[in-house]
Amino acid sequence: MSYHPSNRLARPDAADVAAAIDILRQRFGERLSTGQAVREQHANTLTWLPNEPADAVVFAETEDEVVEVVRVAARHHVPIIPFGTGTSLEGHVNAPVGGISLDVSRMNAIKTVHAEDLDVVIEPGVTRKQLNDYLRDTGLFFPIDPGADASLGGMAATRASGTNAVRYGTMKDNVISLRVVTADGSVVQTASRAKKSSAGYDLTRLFVGSEGTLGVITELTLRLQGIPEAISAGICPFPSVKAAADAVILTIQSGLPVARIELLDGLHVKAINAYSKLTLPEQPLLMLEFHGTEASVAEQATRFGDIAAEYGGGPFTWTTRPEERSKLWQGRHDAYWAALGLRPGARAFATDVCVPISRLAECIAETVDDVAANGLVAPVVGHVGDGNFHLTALVMMDDADEVARMEAMVDRLVLRAIAFGGTATGEHGVGQGKASYMAVEYGEAGVDLMRRIKQAFDPDNIFNPGKILPIR
Amino acid sequence: MSYHPSNRLARPDAADVAAAIDILRQRFGERLSTGQAVREQHANTLTWLPNEPADAVVFAETEDEVVEVVRVAARHHVPIIPFGTGTSLEGHVNAPVGGISLDVSRMNAIKTVHAEDLDVVIEPGVTRKQLNDYLRDTGLFFPIDPGADASLGGMAATRASGTNAVRYGTMKDNVISLRVVTADGSVVQTASRAKKSSAGYDLTRLFVGSEGTLGVITELTLRLQGIPEAISAGICPFPSVKAAADAVILTIQSGLPVARIELLDGLHVKAINAYSKLTLPEQPLLMLEFHGTEASVAEQATRFGDIAAEYGGGPFTWTTRPEERSKLWQGRHDAYWAALGLRPGARAFATDVCVPISRLAECIAETVDDVAANGLVAPVVGHVGDGNFHLTALVMMDDADEVARMEAMVDRLVLRAIAFGGTATGEHGVGQGKASYMAVEYGEAGVDLMRRIKQAFDPDNIFNPGKILPIR
Repeated sequence: MSYHPSNRLARPDAADVAAAIDILRQRFGERLSTGQAVREQHANTLTWLPNEPADAVVFAETEDEVVEVVRVAARHHVPIIPFGTGTSLEGHVNAPVGGISLDVSRMNAIKTVHAEDLDVVIEPGVTRKQLNDYLRDTGLFFPIDPGADASLGGMAATRASGTNAVRYGTMKDNVISLRVVTADGSVVQTASRAKKSSAGYDLTRLFVGSEGTLGVITELTLRLQGIPEAISAGICPFPSVKAAADAVILTIQSGLPVARIELLDGLHVKAINAYSKLTLPEQPLLMLEFHGTEASVAEQATRFGDIAAEYGGGPFTWTTRPEERSKLWQGRHDAYWAALGLRPGARAFATDVCVPISRLAECIAETVDDVAANGLVAPVVGHVGDGNFHLTALVMMDDADEVARMEAMVDRLVLRAIAFGGTATGEHGVGQGKASYMAVEYGEAGVDLMRRIKQAFDPDNIFNPGKILPIR
Repeated sequence: MSYHPSNRLARPDAADVAAAIDILRQRFGERLSTGQAVREQHANTLTWLPNEPADAVVFAETEDEVVEVVRVAARHHVPIIPFGTGTSLEGHVNAPVGGISLDVSRMNAIKTVHAEDLDVVIEPGVTRKQLNDYLRDTGLFFPIDPGADASLGGMAATRASGTNAVRYGTMKDNVISLRVVTADGSVVQTASRAKKSSAGYDLTRLFVGSEGTLGVITELTLRLQGIPEAISAGICPFPSVKAAADAVILTIQSGLPVARIELLDGLHVKAINAYSKLTLPEQPLLMLEFHGTEASVAEQATRFGDIAAEYGGGPFTWTTRPEERSKLWQGRHDAYWAALGLRPGARAFATDVCVPISRLAECIAETVDDVAANGLVAPVVGHVGDGNFHLTALVMMDDADEVARMEAMVDRLVLRAIAFGGTATGEHGVGQGKASYMAVEYGEAGVDLMRRIKQAFDPDNIFNPGKILPIR
């Protein structure tokens, strides 16, 4: 196919960068920073990828200001790296060739709740906890819950999900519409507020997951859910990961509308017991939650217990009492800190893949074997209803050999997931860390289409260069 | 923004068309037809838009053959119009400048059912009824049900939905992955079989709803559902469309997982009574269906009955018996034929819009008034849980003034829906009939992005020219 310049990684001309910063400083005053600490805090901080700071950070407070920054950057061919909370995990906010980090965290207004339509219009810096706190009195909630209290603009940009995705879907399913500033400074509303539409190309879904490489999100219309009348939650141990996965498959095939179904491997349970002072059986464990009426959540729990017993699992202990539910889930929420406790002094590096659920047990088993064979420590936790699991590798950073073994193990994990008919990432995104797998997953023809999209929307490659598409 | 040649509607050079047909005839023999009847049958047949036949129809039987046809057409700059069953409603299969109608209806193999993963891999010519007949013994089903027994390739291309969308979503939500032949004859697999992914641009959702303008779909991986253990269905009359709409809003806010919730206005009920010899109350009517366990569908029905009563609706009569359910839904399924019975000799022209549900009653009321004020007959039926409704205008085609009044009324309907925060089409698609509304709905900046996508994927505009994007 024809030549696409997208994602060449050329450092912009230093004079251009200086000129752009100068214009922006005059316009934004103290809301532009070139201080090292601020710049480093706006680059990658959560993974083993190096920290690559932008040349300056601008704090935008309105859509018009975003337009101004984009226009200045475009005129001077200087990269723009959109920034929400900086909690992404694959180097999404790094600035490998410098440029302007465009911080939208101050754009955090909740504009309109349309309760009858079950939607809300917000600015991109609103975080998921802020939104749910705001909604509490309305009887509505927003279900997508990645580990961090991320900004919703960032969650849309990375197509985030979390523990509720098995029932409520991912950001792909819960973003109704976006406002986006494009490379020439235009503002596009990607869709109406109608619940469905057949009117042309799906611009919304194209920006969801585009990781800031096609435009800057300045407003989101999100789908809300009614807070369920009743919630039941429980824990069920299994003799093996395979038995747990088989129980999950039958649960979903049976049409049980499970709201959460999470897997912890024995190692992770051990870590949680130590950290949270619990006495859970140190074997593969499913943690579940059901949403519905009092009668239906009780029925669902009973039916799940029957399914678990068919695969040697149990006892399934469950409750509808809020304080007991919170206690059950505390262990899951503490998983990251608990994992760190397995190896004092280590850093925890999270990666994720997603496979067809029929291959999940096999994929986890091979991965756990690989981890052990290489002398690594890496507990598994999974959004198992979606075939999505995380590996939290605990690595001593001063041991270069261990770091290299960890990186090679993660590489094999990603290739294994793709070979099993899965994807390089279920919810963390591509960023820098997984760009090299795109051609493995989509083939050269698929990557070529993605390059064409990037080239069509951002011909000068100013938006978050070096992310998603393999560099060449 | 820069100039895009996309969607200029230039008739291809006659010598090029003749050369392409000649090559394809040598290759495909009797599977290429230039007969008038076959060509007309492959153009628009279901609306008031004119029938614009292609120059030839080719019946492809394999993906390799699709690649061959695309390569020949691309080399000679001849349009390709993909064709499934021809049941689209906005002139999608017309060939306004001629070209090759590429009929994939013989590519109708069901390749693999992955029961554990709740997915199926099929060829694009498989129809929805064929698929569900095939699946019957597996305990699984595919929920999307437009009125026609459409091909699933066509349903993906038009982002179709139907009565179950309120619970199971549209084709956007139920296509896991596509194989697509692109303009240079490459074959792209748009996604893995994993249930979710954050790996790059969402190519799947970009092709869903692209109406054959970006590539030819040669394979689909679709999400399946478990057949519910129990189904309850019922009918509930309301004093007004507003009361019915309010009951729907509260039903959905309450988190009742209704599987179908359809609205018929009083005129449509009258038509159905006459056609199907029923004695339904001739007032606005909701028809509902609930999926779940025996206990949960009974609970849902009871709760809906309570909600209906709050808005003066009722009695809500419901049943779980299959034969009684079928009888209840027969009236809904006969709606098209029943509507025709209102005006013997008329043709029925269906259009659809979709608005935020809070504006639905108002939008329907204004539309019904407009219909009456212009001396037209046009009953309303709606997938009201999504804010999506259809108007079936019954028109005497030999009355040019009436046809003109109908077209003007539909124009006002579409503009009204967009003004209410809705979309020009909820499920029928854009085709030729609604291309002129795209700039109203998305603004020039939005249409510009769509033109960029079209230009990037199909620079010579060979795929279904004259559809979706406004002609210029």
